[in-house]
Amino acid sequence: MTAHRIIIDTDPGVDDAVAIMLALASDRLKVEALVTVAGNVTVEQTARNACRILELAQRTDIPVHAGCARPIGHTRVSASHVHGVTGMDGPDLPDPTMPVQPRHGVDYLIDAIRDAPQHSLHLVMLGPMTNLAMALIKAPDIATRLRGVVAMGGARCEGGNITPSAEFNFYADPEAADIVLRSGIALTLLPLDVTHQCLTTPARLARLRALPGRCASAVVAMLEASGRFDLNKYGWAGAPLHDPCTVAWLLQPDLFAGRQVNVAISLHDPLTRGMSVVDWWDTTDRPANALFMHDANADGFYELLTRHLARLP
Amino acid sequence: MTAHRIIIDTDPGVDDAVAIMLALASDRLKVEALVTVAGNVTVEQTARNACRILELAQRTDIPVHAGCARPIGHTRVSASHVHGVTGMDGPDLPDPTMPVQPRHGVDYLIDAIRDAPQHSLHLVMLGPMTNLAMALIKAPDIATRLRGVVAMGGARCEGGNITPSAEFNFYADPEAADIVLRSGIALTLLPLDVTHQCLTTPARLARLRALPGRCASAVVAMLEASGRFDLNKYGWAGAPLHDPCTVAWLLQPDLFAGRQVNVAISLHDPLTRGMSVVDWWDTTDRPANALFMHDANADGFYELLTRHLARLP
Amino acid sequence: MTAHRIIIDTDPGVDDAVAIMLALASDRLKVEALVTVAGNVTVEQTARNACRILELAQRTDIPVHAGCARPIGHTRVSASHVHGVTGMDGPDLPDPTMPVQPRHGVDYLIDAIRDAPQHSLHLVMLGPMTNLAMALIKAPDIATRLRGVVAMGGARCEGGNITPSAEFNFYADPEAADIVLRSGIALTLLPLDVTHQCLTTPARLARLRALPGRCASAVVAMLEASGRFDLNKYGWAGAPLHDPCTVAWLLQPDLFAGRQVNVAISLHDPLTRGMSVVDWWDTTDRPANALFMHDANADGFYELLTRHLARLP
Amino acid sequence: MTAHRIIIDTDPGVDDAVAIMLALASDRLKVEALVTVAGNVTVEQTARNACRILELAQRTDIPVHAGCARPIGHTRVSASHVHGVTGMDGPDLPDPTMPVQPRHGVDYLIDAIRDAPQHSLHLVMLGPMTNLAMALIKAPDIATRLRGVVAMGGARCEGGNITPSAEFNFYADPEAADIVLRSGIALTLLPLDVTHQCLTTPARLARLRALPGRCASAVVAMLEASGRFDLNKYGWAGAPLHDPCTVAWLLQPDLFAGRQVNVAISLHDPLTRGMSVVDWWDTTDRPANALFMHDANADGFYELLTRHLARLP
Ligand SMILES: [Ca+2]
Ligand SMILES: [Ca+2]
Ligand SMILES: [Ca+2]
Ligand SMILES: [Ca+2]
Repeated sequence: MTAHRIIIDTDPGVDDAVAIMLALASDRLKVEALVTVAGNVTVEQTARNACRILELAQRTDIPVHAGCARPIGHTRVSASHVHGVTGMDGPDLPDPTMPVQPRHGVDYLIDAIRDAPQHSLHLVMLGPMTNLAMALIKAPDIATRLRGVVAMGGARCEGGNITPSAEFNFYADPEAADIVLRSGIALTLLPLDVTHQCLTTPARLARLRALPGRCASAVVAMLEASGRFDLNKYGWAGAPLHDPCTVAWLLQPDLFAGRQVNVAISLHDPLTRGMSVVDWWDTTDRPANALFMHDANADGFYELLTRHLARLP
Repeated sequence: MTAHRIIIDTDPGVDDAVAIMLALASDRLKVEALVTVAGNVTVEQTARNACRILELAQRTDIPVHAGCARPIGHTRVSASHVHGVTGMDGPDLPDPTMPVQPRHGVDYLIDAIRDAPQHSLHLVMLGPMTNLAMALIKAPDIATRLRGVVAMGGARCEGGNITPSAEFNFYADPEAADIVLRSGIALTLLPLDVTHQCLTTPARLARLRALPGRCASAVVAMLEASGRFDLNKYGWAGAPLHDPCTVAWLLQPDLFAGRQVNVAISLHDPLTRGMSVVDWWDTTDRPANALFMHDANADGFYELLTRHLARLP
Repeated sequence: MTAHRIIIDTDPGVDDAVAIMLALASDRLKVEALVTVAGNVTVEQTARNACRILELAQRTDIPVHAGCARPIGHTRVSASHVHGVTGMDGPDLPDPTMPVQPRHGVDYLIDAIRDAPQHSLHLVMLGPMTNLAMALIKAPDIATRLRGVVAMGGARCEGGNITPSAEFNFYADPEAADIVLRSGIALTLLPLDVTHQCLTTPARLARLRALPGRCASAVVAMLEASGRFDLNKYGWAGAPLHDPCTVAWLLQPDLFAGRQVNVAISLHDPLTRGMSVVDWWDTTDRPANALFMHDANADGFYELLTRHLARLP
Repeated sequence: MTAHRIIIDTDPGVDDAVAIMLALASDRLKVEALVTVAGNVTVEQTARNACRILELAQRTDIPVHAGCARPIGHTRVSASHVHGVTGMDGPDLPDPTMPVQPRHGVDYLIDAIRDAPQHSLHLVMLGPMTNLAMALIKAPDIATRLRGVVAMGGARCEGGNITPSAEFNFYADPEAADIVLRSGIALTLLPLDVTHQCLTTPARLARLRALPGRCASAVVAMLEASGRFDLNKYGWAGAPLHDPCTVAWLLQPDLFAGRQVNVAISLHDPLTRGMSVVDWWDTTDRPANALFMHDANADGFYELLTRHLARLP
């Protein structure tokens, strides 16, 4: 069986770091590049963090391209109160020495999608959708060339995590999410409804802590540093792990259950801006444009994650 | 123990009919009047239906006041594809002979609220909130006089039943719902999240069918006629029974669990218009303005309903 | 020739006072009642001011009905920084002694419109359109009974006077204006485009000052007190006189030139909320719903006004 | 005196063609490149048309870069009912032979702005603002490097030409206009208020017709072919000439009078989407972000245009 070729568009971020490591650990995924975007922290910081992760995993052969420093829409949000100054606080990682590539992330995306064989490439999106949306405006032809996009974003039952109705990645650039959702690309969404089922309980954290490598240790340090916020706020049994669900779906789709539905993005009411409006009960005639997940096998997910992190240095 | 004094504002409707009969059957509720509103069907039809219900239950001592024939907002919706031509198809009920009162429903509401002792009166709302909103604009002083309002309306996890995000009663007059939610009145909301837990399963329907009176027979006939739509569409184990949850909450609050939260109404985006935006996780600083229910004891609810309907003629 | 029967719906206000006196001075208009609304100042204050004006003009035979104390929409605006504490600062008018009628202004409107012969009654609107909109929701049948409505409201070229795009009366209750504009009533609008042509220049003010009666004196005192704001702000040759244009149009329509066009009210964007969107060039297929004036004969208008005020005590 | 260095971003278009020729004819402007955008017709057609104009004027030394094929926002509009199939119907121009450059227009803009000395370069915008908005998102640093942007776009008194409130260029990509207006770039706007003063009357057209060169002949043929639409629709004395006003302002600023004001773009109400909301009377505290013109010396403008077109082959 051949490996999936993937590009990861990301704003690391603790969850992004875990997702990237999960992808690096699999021999069934070939990570072509990391493209970064402003999100939890600035695009300069997310590019630095991407390099840090690759150096930690000894995969500096993978290029890092910095993308957009700001969203298309005029909403500006920062989650640095949640994610700390660097976005990856916790482990003591040195400043990266590998370079960020000179080519802009948007242009790398366009070229890579055009150069790859038709329907051979998956895009994994772990932050605001600015880069792909920009690529679609600049080069509309790429929409039909991707094999698919799998993204962490949106919410239905769970409500939002940045406003009562909007999830952070979509809220941080609603126009970008709208452009992607109207593009016709085969899209799989891992919304809060799913990621909130995948909690880092003490037992799961203990199994990660037992792993020998420095990657696993860094993951544990980051989760411990970042997890506290959600625990304090909601009194849950653990913090959700959002972004790795995307990579887990690529590796083992049966960990998740979903439905092909229409998802539209609310742009025009401040109360609902950035919300994913999911036509779950098919009450409109809007065509399905996304596989929207609603259920996760959390134990299976953590088993997959633990098994993979064990392979990294 | 003294009886609660209540006014029922309603657009019967099958669910409304069951809710009204549940109220009439209780010796702990004193129904002062029925006020009708355009909703499922026209206000003339809802007033006729209200009279029909009272005649069936031999309670023509209770006055019926017709309220508004149209919503405040410009949205126009009809649910007659769901509810049939009369809104109460099924039983063979004769044309009503009792008169509708000459006073407009909005004016009756204002006068009744002003005339009742402070905080003695509950308003039960089973349709679009047009009448109360109109009363609040015409006579803002009434806001502080009611004991409370309990309404069927809104949705959170369940999503909408008329659009992907909006529940019918709020969608049918979003401006009215917005006015009520900003009024400061003590408000209890029974949203779709709760009413969709209260399904008329075959077993529950069988117990209602076993009741002797003509009221119970009419209820069964209406439920059988109306329930099919939802069954066909969603493949559920039974049809939800929406409006009676409000009266059930007055009679036995511990059948339901909820949370004091802020609820705002989306007005300005066609995608989300009429949606109840519930700040469930307290992510904003908007103050709580409603007790929003999320859980029901469905067996307890049907037990309560069956026991009460047994008392009616 | 028989007199026009008119009801004046008003939030006095200096301009309102002048408009009311102009109507009282004409033997071709029969003022049936004044109905007041919250606007420049509270509805209690506008009702008191209406009584003051009638007492000044010795016309306490005309009833005053207080209408709505708040708008339908959630916008709250106050123009007391423009209009002073009473809304009619300037002359030293005593507290009124005539009573405000007990019937609510909205109900008076409905009853008067229903009781008058079909198409015999004109409504003159000088403030936010709350009362008529409420009447139309409560009693939709009245829409076809009025002869017409003439209102001060809206703006096209001139832009707004409370926001860059909205005129005060429409902005103060955009939902009300929207309801009236969708009602099918024959509507004549005197927007800022016209009223800003009717400036109280020193020469025109001098002719009013030369009039003998106490009414004219009060008008001059009010204009002098209120006019300064606009003069200071825009450096114009005089302050515009808004509301009397409506009555002047009833008395002498050829003072104004306009066009039958579609006017819609922007409700959903904070930047444009309350704006009158006028389809001047017929670029849409929306049907005409208002005669929207664009030009005034200002000298003719002041000549009419001066001649009429001379007749009052 | 040294020549202004300018880049022209354009969707030719008859008006664009005239504007480009006016710029080419001046020895005080150095046209660095034409960048094209979808607008009146597709971006492929606008690039072809740009080449046609340069070949007609024997200026194939100037590169043409094709930019975005679609707007950022989801509005799609076509004005081909106004502009004909090619966008430049009328003269019989051969298919162009000069190549369109391989570099994308957005990237050309970014590189050219970064490579030029600080504040040395003017951008002339004659179509939807998509390219510059994309460049600002991809490379926010360019905002402070331009000397200025002069654009045809917006409307105040005149109302819109594509909807009652929106001008075509802004309506065709409201999000792009919003991004440019928030960017801090020194912006001069030539709105419909100005361009509708610059009518191609028969006398002015006659003077152009008297010019000897093939460029002037092509302009006359295009104006005659395109002008009919506006003449038929509005019964004006001639058709407005929009885009050349931008170049005329660069050449002779005293032909126009304007005001430094805040201009915001309405995005969220379908009634007003794409409208330029101009704070003409300074009723808000939004800072000035554009020099918005309101008056033109039309005779001077046509004199300038005729004199310059005379210089072209
Ligand atoms: Ca992320
Ligand atoms: Ca109901
Ligand atoms: Ca007024
Ligand atoms: Ca153009």
